[in-house]
Amino acid sequence: MIERLAVIGVGLIGGSLAKALRAAGAVGEIIGCGRGWTNLERALALGVIDHATDDPGRAAAKADVIFIAAPLGAMHEIFAAIKGKIMPHTVITDAGSVKDSVIQDVIKVFGAIPANFVPGHPIAGTEHSGVEAALVDLYQGRRVILTPLSHTSRKAIDLVERIWLVSGAVVTHMEAARHDEILAATSHLPHMLAFSLVDVLARMQENDEIFKYAAGGFRDFTRIASSNPVMWRDICIANRNALQFTLQNFAQELNNLANALNNSEGTELLKIFTRAKAARDRYLDGISDAGE
Amino acid sequence: MIERLAVIGVGLIGGSLAKALRAAGAVGEIIGCGRGWTNLERALALGVIDHATDDPGRAAAKADVIFIAAPLGAMHEIFAAIKGKIMPHTVITDAGSVKDSVIQDVIKVFGAIPANFVPGHPIAGTEHSGVEAALVDLYQGRRVILTPLSHTSRKAIDLVERIWLVSGAVVTHMEAARHDEILAATSHLPHMLAFSLVDVLARMQENDEIFKYAAGGFRDFTRIASSNPVMWRDICIANRNALQFTLQNFAQELNNLANALNNSEGTELLKIFTRAKAARDRYLDGISDAGE
Repeated sequence: MIERLAVIGVGLIGGSLAKALRAAGAVGEIIGCGRGWTNLERALALGVIDHATDDPGRAAAKADVIFIAAPLGAMHEIFAAIKGKIMPHTVITDAGSVKDSVIQDVIKVFGAIPANFVPGHPIAGTEHSGVEAALVDLYQGRRVILTPLSHTSRKAIDLVERIWLVSGAVVTHMEAARHDEILAATSHLPHMLAFSLVDVLARMQENDEIFKYAAGGFRDFTRIASSNPVMWRDICIANRNALQFTLQNFAQELNNLANALNNSEGTELLKIFTRAKAARDRYLDGISDAGE
Repeated sequence: MIERLAVIGVGLIGGSLAKALRAAGAVGEIIGCGRGWTNLERALALGVIDHATDDPGRAAAKADVIFIAAPLGAMHEIFAAIKGKIMPHTVITDAGSVKDSVIQDVIKVFGAIPANFVPGHPIAGTEHSGVEAALVDLYQGRRVILTPLSHTSRKAIDLVERIWLVSGAVVTHMEAARHDEILAATSHLPHMLAFSLVDVLARMQENDEIFKYAAGGFRDFTRIASSNPVMWRDICIANRNALQFTLQNFAQELNNLANALNNSEGTELLKIFTRAKAARDRYLDGISDAGE
């Protein structure tokens, strides 16, 4: 399916795709590219990649497919490094969790979106990172959203779609703006809430005394506050427009809830809590159907 | 330690205390009281209680200690039912998750807080309920907060404290208002956030389409939105004063975050995320030290 694949950023996301494609016999050679030689050497030792380089231009030069699984903050620099080094038939795709910002970075570097560039986002991950955390079945049953533009090559879209299907994922297409709006609500807002709740609590009492009185639910609720702060700063800034709107809406919702507490019957609260429980339980049914 | 214990509300909380005291050999006879005969019969069959009744007055009449582990919305009615039926030496305590509202219910019924009443709150629970979910070690290493008043009998406080220590808990004393403020932040606010996030998402798109794009973190983050809506309506209404303040503060915090997104360096965001991650990681260290 792919003769030579370049994976730029051989961490959990890039490493897992490399493993899945290799396991499926869908790739000939894999060139890994990254900044950290320790991680690249581990990737070589684990057999996740066949060659290693710290130069995205060299990695891209002979590849038929380039998969960029780097932090959003590094995208611009990577596009600049591969510009002019790519073969005409080469298909480029990425795993950035905000699509409009990646598209803007591409436009800044290339002047326009190349027809062979297919923006993508696999909705998968664990709290671990680095190539050692990569899993051959990370994408099994997970959603991948592709946000091609109107002039994106049909052939390029088909190839990227097959790459994800072979890796076990379910592929959906939508507009970049729609993707960013959905992810703001389902992922970026929850992270903002978890980070700021923990921070508010930490500031309420010295010596973390208050955390002693946090029950089990608090642990689950705030798990995502242990995520990488730099990565999340980048994501939030990259998706600032959609996220600002979502945050302000949610703040308004909280003020409505505060007002709803004035009704001593709690009619409105019960309505919200009941609707939410039903939706959450349906969501759980949905993911267990998907074999998760 | 206790000859006759009355447990009013033989669910997860009441049943677990009964089991723990029985296992420790700290109790002679246990009288269980509840509204549902099916649950009471299960409690008898499981040996969690020795006698069953649906009349709180009868349960209280011969007890040396009365433990009320009922929903907040049922407290007033239970106090009214046991009034005038209690022996002078009998010690009463409860497990209500809001302390000021329980104290107000006691005052409404008794005119004042009896010296033998020790308000309490074990910070423990699972997502399951009913006597079958009761665990002998539910309170092992968990915090119990007692909020005695200035005139509460020292002897009564000591007995309630010993009950919890024997059950494996760590006991802390504080004022009821302080308890309600802390729990508003560590428990009631997170539940409000989880319920309203799920509800906002459910309303964003028909057919729960949006939940398909929720990643793994979302599942943990919203687990508490599967909690019992009636119980949480009661808790939120009972703690409305502290919770209203906390909700409005948090809404302000979200508006600040929305503004912080305008700074393209994300300096403020990174500061908040980094502080939160550090606090969360310390919190995790803390609970693993406690053997959880």
